[in-house]
Amino acid sequence: MTDLFWPGDHLAGDLMSDAAFLTAMLAVEQAWLDGLVDAGVAPTTAGITLPTDVDLDTVARQADSDGNPVSGLVALLRDRTPDPASRWIHRGLTSQDVVDTALMLCLRDVLTRLAEDVRAQVDSLVALTEGHRHTPALARTLTQPALPTTVGTRTAAWLTGLLDAADPLDRTEQPAQLGGAVGTLAAVVELTGSVPAAVELTSRVATRLGLTPAHPWHTTRAPLTRIGDLLAGLCDAWGHLAADVATGGRAEIGEFAEGQGGGSSTMPHKNNPVRSVLIRRAALTAGPLAGTLHTAAATNVDERADGAWHAEWATIATLARRTVVAGAHTTDLLGGLRVDADRAAANLAAAGDLAAEQATMATLVGRQPQSTYLGVADYLVDAALDRAASYVNAPNRKDAP
Amino acid sequence: MTDLFWPGDHLAGDLMSDAAFLTAMLAVEQAWLDGLVDAGVAPTTAGITLPTDVDLDTVARQADSDGNPVSGLVALLRDRTPDPASRWIHRGLTSQDVVDTALMLCLRDVLTRLAEDVRAQVDSLVALTEGHRHTPALARTLTQPALPTTVGTRTAAWLTGLLDAADPLDRTEQPAQLGGAVGTLAAVVELTGSVPAAVELTSRVATRLGLTPAHPWHTTRAPLTRIGDLLAGLCDAWGHLAADVATGGRAEIGEFAEGQGGGSSTMPHKNNPVRSVLIRRAALTAGPLAGTLHTAAATNVDERADGAWHAEWATIATLARRTVVAGAHTTDLLGGLRVDADRAAANLAAAGDLAAEQATMATLVGRQPQSTYLGVADYLVDAALDRAASYVNAPNRKDAP
Amino acid sequence: MTDLFWPGDHLAGDLMSDAAFLTAMLAVEQAWLDGLVDAGVAPTTAGITLPTDVDLDTVARQADSDGNPVSGLVALLRDRTPDPASRWIHRGLTSQDVVDTALMLCLRDVLTRLAEDVRAQVDSLVALTEGHRHTPALARTLTQPALPTTVGTRTAAWLTGLLDAADPLDRTEQPAQLGGAVGTLAAVVELTGSVPAAVELTSRVATRLGLTPAHPWHTTRAPLTRIGDLLAGLCDAWGHLAADVATGGRAEIGEFAEGQGGGSSTMPHKNNPVRSVLIRRAALTAGPLAGTLHTAAATNVDERADGAWHAEWATIATLARRTVVAGAHTTDLLGGLRVDADRAAANLAAAGDLAAEQATMATLVGRQPQSTYLGVADYLVDAALDRAASYVNAPNRKDAP
Amino acid sequence: MTDLFWPGDHLAGDLMSDAAFLTAMLAVEQAWLDGLVDAGVAPTTAGITLPTDVDLDTVARQADSDGNPVSGLVALLRDRTPDPASRWIHRGLTSQDVVDTALMLCLRDVLTRLAEDVRAQVDSLVALTEGHRHTPALARTLTQPALPTTVGTRTAAWLTGLLDAADPLDRTEQPAQLGGAVGTLAAVVELTGSVPAAVELTSRVATRLGLTPAHPWHTTRAPLTRIGDLLAGLCDAWGHLAADVATGGRAEIGEFAEGQGGGSSTMPHKNNPVRSVLIRRAALTAGPLAGTLHTAAATNVDERADGAWHAEWATIATLARRTVVAGAHTTDLLGGLRVDADRAAANLAAAGDLAAEQATMATLVGRQPQSTYLGVADYLVDAALDRAASYVNAPNRKDAP
Repeated sequence: MTDLFWPGDHLAGDLMSDAAFLTAMLAVEQAWLDGLVDAGVAPTTAGITLPTDVDLDTVARQADSDGNPVSGLVALLRDRTPDPASRWIHRGLTSQDVVDTALMLCLRDVLTRLAEDVRAQVDSLVALTEGHRHTPALARTLTQPALPTTVGTRTAAWLTGLLDAADPLDRTEQPAQLGGAVGTLAAVVELTGSVPAAVELTSRVATRLGLTPAHPWHTTRAPLTRIGDLLAGLCDAWGHLAADVATGGRAEIGEFAEGQGGGSSTMPHKNNPVRSVLIRRAALTAGPLAGTLHTAAATNVDERADGAWHAEWATIATLARRTVVAGAHTTDLLGGLRVDADRAAANLAAAGDLAAEQATMATLVGRQPQSTYLGVADYLVDAALDRAASYVNAPNRKDAP
Repeated sequence: MTDLFWPGDHLAGDLMSDAAFLTAMLAVEQAWLDGLVDAGVAPTTAGITLPTDVDLDTVARQADSDGNPVSGLVALLRDRTPDPASRWIHRGLTSQDVVDTALMLCLRDVLTRLAEDVRAQVDSLVALTEGHRHTPALARTLTQPALPTTVGTRTAAWLTGLLDAADPLDRTEQPAQLGGAVGTLAAVVELTGSVPAAVELTSRVATRLGLTPAHPWHTTRAPLTRIGDLLAGLCDAWGHLAADVATGGRAEIGEFAEGQGGGSSTMPHKNNPVRSVLIRRAALTAGPLAGTLHTAAATNVDERADGAWHAEWATIATLARRTVVAGAHTTDLLGGLRVDADRAAANLAAAGDLAAEQATMATLVGRQPQSTYLGVADYLVDAALDRAASYVNAPNRKDAP
Repeated sequence: MTDLFWPGDHLAGDLMSDAAFLTAMLAVEQAWLDGLVDAGVAPTTAGITLPTDVDLDTVARQADSDGNPVSGLVALLRDRTPDPASRWIHRGLTSQDVVDTALMLCLRDVLTRLAEDVRAQVDSLVALTEGHRHTPALARTLTQPALPTTVGTRTAAWLTGLLDAADPLDRTEQPAQLGGAVGTLAAVVELTGSVPAAVELTSRVATRLGLTPAHPWHTTRAPLTRIGDLLAGLCDAWGHLAADVATGGRAEIGEFAEGQGGGSSTMPHKNNPVRSVLIRRAALTAGPLAGTLHTAAATNVDERADGAWHAEWATIATLARRTVVAGAHTTDLLGGLRVDADRAAANLAAAGDLAAEQATMATLVGRQPQSTYLGVADYLVDAALDRAASYVNAPNRKDAP
Repeated sequence: MTDLFWPGDHLAGDLMSDAAFLTAMLAVEQAWLDGLVDAGVAPTTAGITLPTDVDLDTVARQADSDGNPVSGLVALLRDRTPDPASRWIHRGLTSQDVVDTALMLCLRDVLTRLAEDVRAQVDSLVALTEGHRHTPALARTLTQPALPTTVGTRTAAWLTGLLDAADPLDRTEQPAQLGGAVGTLAAVVELTGSVPAAVELTSRVATRLGLTPAHPWHTTRAPLTRIGDLLAGLCDAWGHLAADVATGGRAEIGEFAEGQGGGSSTMPHKNNPVRSVLIRRAALTAGPLAGTLHTAAATNVDERADGAWHAEWATIATLARRTVVAGAHTTDLLGGLRVDADRAAANLAAAGDLAAEQATMATLVGRQPQSTYLGVADYLVDAALDRAASYVNAPNRKDAP
């Protein structure tokens, strides 16, 4: 899958693609059918493997009539499946169950991939931070020279930002949505004959799919907005470091350079910070997408919303896919980032006398100024590295093999 | 083209698709090559027809290295084109010229299609408004019964909203972007030998492409934000009427019904207002997309921005394509909309005594209450119909044959 | 404090007001001065109580020259304070320390207030849910009648949504920002003479202020975006239930009514769902504000950003204040909500034959349809009530006395 | 009026303040009362001057009960006004008429002020552009050195961006909203006795207020979204130039400096680009606010929306006020901007050999490279200056004396 309007899109592979969504919907229908059989609701002869070679285009076109892709998909599956299975497909489910659960399946894969990228980025940032712990650099505020710092302190801040953003990655749940037509599992109770059996069935199906068993969240959309916020938070962290790289990579500053910049068809001298540019692009668009998920959540009504639900699918898909691409770009960026310690030192030197604040402080306490003015920089570097180590060694990490 | 996350997407056909974008970029390169030849800059032997069977996937993948799809496309074209044409392809242009001009070509087609839909919608709304000019209905404010109105007055408001939104449709320009590496046409002046010749060349190429000749707008993005605002405005107008239809179509209200609603796989009694729901979906996501274009415009810097420019492509493409789909849905909705005059009258009657305000007014002026309390409703209907007629008969309409 | 453009604003009292922000900034300066004295850095004679009767207007006007309100405030404090205290005010801090820490102080109070409102809302929802556990109602999807449900099932969903949104309320940290000019505490190390002493000082000051000691987050803004996301999440949950109330309160539906609706100056029969309307208003604007905080976080650069930081203050203040107001409105709405069980039953009856799905299911399993078709509704009610009980009884609740 | 969260807010004075809004609402009530008297509907003895010393706080608090500030205001006015005037106040109007018309009155003043600022900015940009038409500078794309340009070419682009943004300023209408309870003027027809008289009355009142007579737009909100888009467009143009100034003002680049930068309490060497920073702040928040107005417009329903309308007031007020402040900052920035021609030249020189593209072009056409490589830069400067002259000399300018 590629997107000519979003260079790098193919780096997300099939994650959160139309094909992945279709596959996930099929997985939901399969797991449900299996669940019905396992529960003794459907006969064992219904326990077949559903066709998976479904034409995406056909399903997508049919989705326009129904407002969602599930009705068409179910009709198509039933059409291609012999009795008694055909009679049991989708029984007890509603379209929203299939769409929402499929979205969560896709998002689970997205988050796993993101965890892998974060892990690689943490490694790169640890190396950068350790390597440049003592590399002098100029700290700037409001674009202007401020005080001395070190390159490692700056990359430690990137690391901290990354770990802050990644913090919810392992905690965020992907709940299955299995509630039936109006979220009461009425049909499932009818089929299984009892409330406990219905609950048990949904719980087993969720587990089978690798999702968290959950009560219906058809009208309460925090499971989705939380993931949207998480994705935006990652883009924020990457956008921040990409801005530093793009700025530090200006010819006049020259402290950073991408390992492999982009060229120009007509200007051979150019070494464009393409990774940074593309990451910044994603960062500029992520916030409004996460905001849109909130707007959709906030305009829910009835037992299934009249547009708010439908607005979520492409919004979370776009946000998720772009986040994966930005993650890949950031991994690449950090893996190849070149630091020019000489230029960093030169910029610090050129900034002139930055010692006024230190002199004021020394005078206040009646001491000679200390030999450096780096404060707790080294301590912050250690703290960030310690935190990185904890992150890397944490159990239950999504990216664990 | 279909999008499983956005049912109805195929209704936009190839408009603003990856394929359309690629075709448009090829058209820009072709027009430029032709322009170079026509201007006597390139030899007539360079005036060939460029290949058009370019593999989209290849170009999209290559775009990741360069940050945009043009460098790869140009390399590919040069590779497949004999001398001397291969030497002249893209000479004087920069990537941004090709991307921006191609976007405008795609947007021109989008706006033409939208004008056609608006035209059809105006016709439907005129018919609805004329037909229900005197159909009594209940006006509601803050969800509560307020005063009598007519169905035609409500549809006249939809018509007014539509015409307001469509107003800029025929005025909005699609300027070509032909500025060279940094917007100064330096290479073109070098090639043509003079400033007037360079300006003349760009003007001719723009005209040849059916776009407006314009000074470079590489860093001043109003041409794009204007179109974004226009698209959002159309979605607003459609969202408004879809909300009225969805509300009026509630079983308890029953004043409106879609000509052909959507069914449910398990609940045969359902007649879902699918068109309204899908239009509302688009309306909920349009504003933030238009806002993102402003954010991108506002963060421009240098002679080509480091991310803000790149954030625009998919944003405007998504917004444009969704607007086209929403337009098609609205045309369909209005073409088939059923008004239940009996239910409208019944709701009015059931609202009970709404005459208090009228009585207050009559007492104030010492007169008996008039026989109705519809105020200028009929006058507003006439005004909306007159405005519709002017719109339909205006010269230079985009949708004119 | 009132806001004519945002009715109800005064319900937030001084929370996150200009006055509260000024008070918080003064508290930071005071705590820092006290901290310097306690640490033995400043002489005990510097340990005075700073003036608190600072003219807000003067500080606000001066903020324009400096780009933030702190420099002016510090100058004013020094001017009004005798030696040696005047020499020690603000020493070691930077403007961002004071602004960010003050924002967190204000936000802490906001979150405490929100926790109180959530608690009251939980109580109301528990009562509503228990009271209407068996009240029959019509479940609707895509605006259309779907299946039977109960009013208690719907309010249990509101409760679930609220608890989901409130979940991070007790977990979200409000870290102090104490990093000095570029986040390295250089001045503080100079003043205290050692890194451990500097760290200790900041930790004590944070604790004294009731905030979490933390490493500088001057360029990594997750602490702020997390709170923004939390606030938007609450607005989502309230917006959802307000939409249900506004819809259910339509004259033609009549299932819900606000305890005390708003009147109309000219239409005495009106009983507008004013609380619902004003909550919906807040919900429509919260998402984009939370999104803007992400955009600001994502465009950070250097050791203090050139605009992104400044964009946060009013954005989080507006979002926070509106959330408090919406919280108060929701507490009020739920406390007085009237359920019309007869109308709910009538709407269910009027929806006609909803039994097709049940019949299909019964046929499939070869059984007679069960006497009801409410599925696990009661189980979901119990689950929501159990979760509410856990929430109410949780230790470390922000709203605990 | 000041805002501690938004430094510089006081530069907007009373524009779009609570006080201005209240004054505007009073002006609407006064104009309407006068209109009733003039039309012979109310007795001449009712033609009094309404009190203007209304307590804002009281009105704002009361607005919470009614959901808008008008009912309380009217009650208060009637209470303080003798008969017969008290009986005639607000007769025929609805709350939305007063709020919307008052917003337009406030916005008219905002746009007038913006036109004045744009005019001053145009003058500054003309001077800068003329003065630096030939000042060599380095053009940069994607942060990297690209080709030679001139400072005047860059400022001409700023000028073009400004004129693009200002283009709709003189065209945008501020329509009165005078439609009565449901937009049909039912009460007014009752009062005046005829449709033409009702229309005439509203037209006269609109004119008296200096607004455009218009059909009711209570549910069709393009008049508001158009202004929101315009305001965002101006912020875009200013954000763009502020980004260039902030970037060009980096110590390592040094091409631009603000006339009067901001200092630091602890670092006396700092000269912060405070104007640019504060403009960028506004530019980052404007797009989402304009987007929110679209979302509100898109979710209109009934004859008065249940939240969407209420979401507009503070949104447009915030956007308008911030735009005025950003306009003042930009006027100040451009009026004092210092260009360091030597640094600009040095940066160009330091960029090394940029001649490769030119050499390629010259080789292609078999000519010696021209002496410069500035292309049509001078032509673009002339075009921008010509356009500025047309703008300045245009009739019907809002800022005309």
